[in-house]
Amino acid sequence: MAQKPTLPKGTRDFTPSEVVKRNYIFDIVKKHFTAFGFQPIETPSFENSETLMGKYGDEGDRLIFKILNSGDYLSKVDDPTYADRDSNKLTPKISEKALRYDLTVPFARYVVMHQNELDFPFKRYQIQPVWRADRPQKGRFREFFQCDADVVGANSLLQEVELVQLYDAVFTDLGLTGVSIKLNNRKVLAGIAEVIGAKEHLIDFTVALDKLDKIGEEGVKKEMLEKGISEEAIVKAAPLFTMSGSNADQLLALKELLKDSVEGSKGAEELSFIVETLEDLGLQSASLKLDVTLARGLNYYTGAIFEVAAPEKVKLGSIGGGGRYDDLTGIFGLKDVSGVGISFGLDRIYLVLEELNLFPKAIDQSLDVLCVNFGDKEALAALKLVGKLRKMGVKADFYPSTAKMQKQMKYANNRNVPYVVLIGEQELADNIFVVKDMAKGEQQTYSLDAPENFVKEL
Amino acid sequence: MAQKPTLPKGTRDFTPSEVVKRNYIFDIVKKHFTAFGFQPIETPSFENSETLMGKYGDEGDRLIFKILNSGDYLSKVDDPTYADRDSNKLTPKISEKALRYDLTVPFARYVVMHQNELDFPFKRYQIQPVWRADRPQKGRFREFFQCDADVVGANSLLQEVELVQLYDAVFTDLGLTGVSIKLNNRKVLAGIAEVIGAKEHLIDFTVALDKLDKIGEEGVKKEMLEKGISEEAIVKAAPLFTMSGSNADQLLALKELLKDSVEGSKGAEELSFIVETLEDLGLQSASLKLDVTLARGLNYYTGAIFEVAAPEKVKLGSIGGGGRYDDLTGIFGLKDVSGVGISFGLDRIYLVLEELNLFPKAIDQSLDVLCVNFGDKEALAALKLVGKLRKMGVKADFYPSTAKMQKQMKYANNRNVPYVVLIGEQELADNIFVVKDMAKGEQQTYSLDAPENFVKEL
Repeated sequence: MAQKPTLPKGTRDFTPSEVVKRNYIFDIVKKHFTAFGFQPIETPSFENSETLMGKYGDEGDRLIFKILNSGDYLSKVDDPTYADRDSNKLTPKISEKALRYDLTVPFARYVVMHQNELDFPFKRYQIQPVWRADRPQKGRFREFFQCDADVVGANSLLQEVELVQLYDAVFTDLGLTGVSIKLNNRKVLAGIAEVIGAKEHLIDFTVALDKLDKIGEEGVKKEMLEKGISEEAIVKAAPLFTMSGSNADQLLALKELLKDSVEGSKGAEELSFIVETLEDLGLQSASLKLDVTLARGLNYYTGAIFEVAAPEKVKLGSIGGGGRYDDLTGIFGLKDVSGVGISFGLDRIYLVLEELNLFPKAIDQSLDVLCVNFGDKEALAALKLVGKLRKMGVKADFYPSTAKMQKQMKYANNRNVPYVVLIGEQELADNIFVVKDMAKGEQQTYSLDAPENFVKEL
Repeated sequence: MAQKPTLPKGTRDFTPSEVVKRNYIFDIVKKHFTAFGFQPIETPSFENSETLMGKYGDEGDRLIFKILNSGDYLSKVDDPTYADRDSNKLTPKISEKALRYDLTVPFARYVVMHQNELDFPFKRYQIQPVWRADRPQKGRFREFFQCDADVVGANSLLQEVELVQLYDAVFTDLGLTGVSIKLNNRKVLAGIAEVIGAKEHLIDFTVALDKLDKIGEEGVKKEMLEKGISEEAIVKAAPLFTMSGSNADQLLALKELLKDSVEGSKGAEELSFIVETLEDLGLQSASLKLDVTLARGLNYYTGAIFEVAAPEKVKLGSIGGGGRYDDLTGIFGLKDVSGVGISFGLDRIYLVLEELNLFPKAIDQSLDVLCVNFGDKEALAALKLVGKLRKMGVKADFYPSTAKMQKQMKYANNRNVPYVVLIGEQELADNIFVVKDMAKGEQQTYSLDAPENFVKEL
């Protein structure tokens, strides 16, 4: 019985054109990851549930896709649990594996399990899909690729410096000039909360501050008040709302504001080092911008915080982010492994390149040459020619049946083939082939013994 | 609380060296897929359960990984079903999605869903992981990549011809010479069963025949008898066990044997066409061998059947297979779409290349150059040099801290870096860098302003 097939919500098929464009981005990203000394790893799509559960908060736990145990899974459920009929209690009894939710926790697991064979600092990159049972909406999918580069086992701020260079190298190579790499530091945020007397409200304070570009100064102040941050503290925080000018100017203001906080001053020093070193080294097309309102999953990061904004003319928000975290592998029992990493938001980068028309022309041209099929003998000659062209790296094909000329040419048109090759009875007798340039409408003739003369002109 | 992490059974982490080698194989396969006019598609990792269930037989259904519904999934289970406490009955109530089991059924779904935007013949390739809840054993995993190329919407035997050429092109490029591409035809098997009077035992007959190289002639005959095939039929089938000589000789014998079967004769004609066309076109390094005992999932194939055997010196069995199927998309309501396809067995090809030492030397060399870190000022100069090297495509890195020289050199050794760059105080003053060739132990000096002179010699 035939069913009309559908896709699960939040998932996508990728057409040839989409796959080719996605791979174009991946290939450029990988090229620079490799040049920067990062090495690829891959981890399994599913992990033991206990590896993932409890690492992403309650909401994360809910969004993790669980895999049902195989076989007669109910036979392992004890009677009282089954009688309770409670989904949350039943799940751990009937499901031991789950699809990965991000690449960070699997990476931490990898580092711990492979610690004896790794040379630290270990620079890894990983480009694999992750799955989240999020409510699907425009631009948000239940299966999507993450693309991460991390260095673990090194405290040096030079790592932060080179990660900014890495962003710059990739976006420059993609032709996406004008991105802003925003930079902040968790210690600075903690220092500000400290000096304004809102240390115990650090999270609420930074969550509100992070919304400055969305809800404005008044909105942020309102939210802070609502969260119990005092008027006095908010007044003291005023310089944050108006911080502007060059990175150097902002750093001066910041150091003044934070002079009474040891942690805050250390954060400001770290920012200074990164900013100044990068001024010395230079960036190709991106700009580095201090942004003291940047927070991004604050609990996770302990030092630098990065976020990359697409050029302002496209309204797409963040196309990458990352930061330093001082205890990546502690959750799996390996202490004192500091790490710093960045990620690239593939789906958004794709949309930006599409919107700005930055994919190379004809990137999704799937065929260079199509040979028309005039009959069995002619087809054999075409097949020989196609074989030679393929060996020379030309994407070549032949029409597999002796359909009407009109049908074959329609196929060539639909596939947008730039050159159609004709070998009819006469051409075969003359040992030649005719090449029709579909754009110009012109025809050229070449010897079947010397297809390289045609390839030279491609 | 720290857990000691483990991997789910049957799954693997891939180390950098393994990822690089796997990608080497993928890249070569993709290069030839593309030259042959195949286009990439990708489908979601999970499908609706009804898309997959019932397509692979009862055993297949059991081996499909099911995904638990999110949220309070038990609330949608009716009371009688829950009271039954039967895993098989409960599963469809609490699980609506499943991980893909192969790439063929998702491809059929893709063709049906995208039929109005596809140009037939549609040549697609797909390289993605699949999941099976198989008992893990040596060389068999619960997550593994499949790598398929199929043409749908064309009946021409020229497709079979070019798929053999495609196998030949890929294995030649991988340096894996001496593979055998075994060829058979489902119609020939049906014809044999018919002429020996065992038509109603076609499956048993071919399943037994398929085991000829494993259990020998006597074993096959014994199994056939046990399955109810008559002595008389087995006597008539005798020529099959001794079929030898060139493909041409075998074809002659086969045509004689099958002369009273319309279907069988058609199959033999198809084999003749493929064999003769390929003799005319020639293969680079593989050989094409008729094998009338080859069956491979007979129920699935309707015409040609392929299987690729690794060179005899490696005992690894099949490294690829495929065939023609006349009704790929019928399961989803689209009739009369003939297809023919092949697949590459990545994991086995990897093992063969490893065993025969066919991966390029230094393929997993993750760094070309490592700069030693002598201090803050020197590190900045090193970072500038590294930046220039990376832009020239050199995999370059610097040691991130001013650790003891011994420790830094040990790191360079462990990462198997061929060139170590030294920029100490004196070098910095002289505006030069020293390159130590780790294999030869020799040192060379270059100007910091002209690193291209060093790159030229790499």
